[in-house]
Amino acid sequence: MKGPESLFKLIEELRKLPGVGRKTAERLAFYILKSQRHEADALVKAILELKEKVRLCSVCNSITEVDPCNICSDMNREKNLLCVVEEPHDVFAIEKTREFKGSYHVLMGVLSPLDGIGPSDLKIEELLSRVRENGIREVILATNPNLEGEATAMYIAKVLKPFGMKVTRIARGLPVGGDLEYADEVTLTKSIEGRQEM
Amino acid sequence: MKGPESLFKLIEELRKLPGVGRKTAERLAFYILKSQRHEADALVKAILELKEKVRLCSVCNSITEVDPCNICSDMNREKNLLCVVEEPHDVFAIEKTREFKGSYHVLMGVLSPLDGIGPSDLKIEELLSRVRENGIREVILATNPNLEGEATAMYIAKVLKPFGMKVTRIARGLPVGGDLEYADEVTLTKSIEGRQEM
Repeated sequence: MKGPESLFKLIEELRKLPGVGRKTAERLAFYILKSQRHEADALVKAILELKEKVRLCSVCNSITEVDPCNICSDMNREKNLLCVVEEPHDVFAIEKTREFKGSYHVLMGVLSPLDGIGPSDLKIEELLSRVRENGIREVILATNPNLEGEATAMYIAKVLKPFGMKVTRIARGLPVGGDLEYADEVTLTKSIEGRQEM
Repeated sequence: MKGPESLFKLIEELRKLPGVGRKTAERLAFYILKSQRHEADALVKAILELKEKVRLCSVCNSITEVDPCNICSDMNREKNLLCVVEEPHDVFAIEKTREFKGSYHVLMGVLSPLDGIGPSDLKIEELLSRVRENGIREVILATNPNLEGEATAMYIAKVLKPFGMKVTRIARGLPVGGDLEYADEVTLTKSIEGRQEM
């Protein structure tokens, strides 16, 4: 197809983004083409600043512009309640609830033997150091409720056992607004197993 | 929500893109965050080069890096067969068929009285100049088959009438692979009206 090389190049780059196929990449590229110069510059600046400024918190491995991160340095957050998650974006998912007042520990992945990812590839040693050094009263395992997440939670529960603190797992059950009729068997089983007194 | 300012800034910028909501913007921003530096740089470079290099063809108003565009300067394309489209991206949609061997004229919009867009806001005067100066044998009106596109096609057909050349409209009918049962009444009517002898 004949046409401007730089347009095809941008379409190609946009297609590398998750969930962006050929049609979406074309629509985005044409939008950027039609946008004002200052709008495209704002997008470019935002990408560059993100790559420039954001780093991992040396305490919890969450992403941050300051080290330690705002959550780790916040004196109002409970330091002896630790929520363990897989990825930095999980921190933001939980923060959005505005309910959790403890601290985080990001594993930077999940156990996945098929991909060759074992315990030493995750920030588990760092978790044990934090547990050893600070008087942690509870560790909440908030890895994803899928095969790898469950296996990782079970592994961490096992290695935390000798420390004797409370280790909990986030509840698995029917999503709020969901429907029993459409729930899968495993979720429904977990939902019944995890029932709570009213 | 506490967190890196530059991440929220990029999410905000990405949300301005068409079809990108909050969730998608977050996923894209986290993807860019996790990507290698050179990958982010390639995306930034592609955006900047697009804005830098691409301009409108002085003949047909299609987008191009060279003026006149590759299609206008291609001696193998018919110069007396003109396909009129609304936007530059429509040129690429038709080029993908690899069937059309004529030239294009991009209107840069469509008549839309409610948005205050009249004939003088479109490249209709330029179309008349091309028709006047070159011996055009046929003008194909390929504006979108919706209210504004039809009105624009009818308007252009009217102003082209005095020149006496053939003026055609792209066929409206059932999409290939479509189903009579699910076709709307207007499309089906157009499809019967536009029937062709076999």
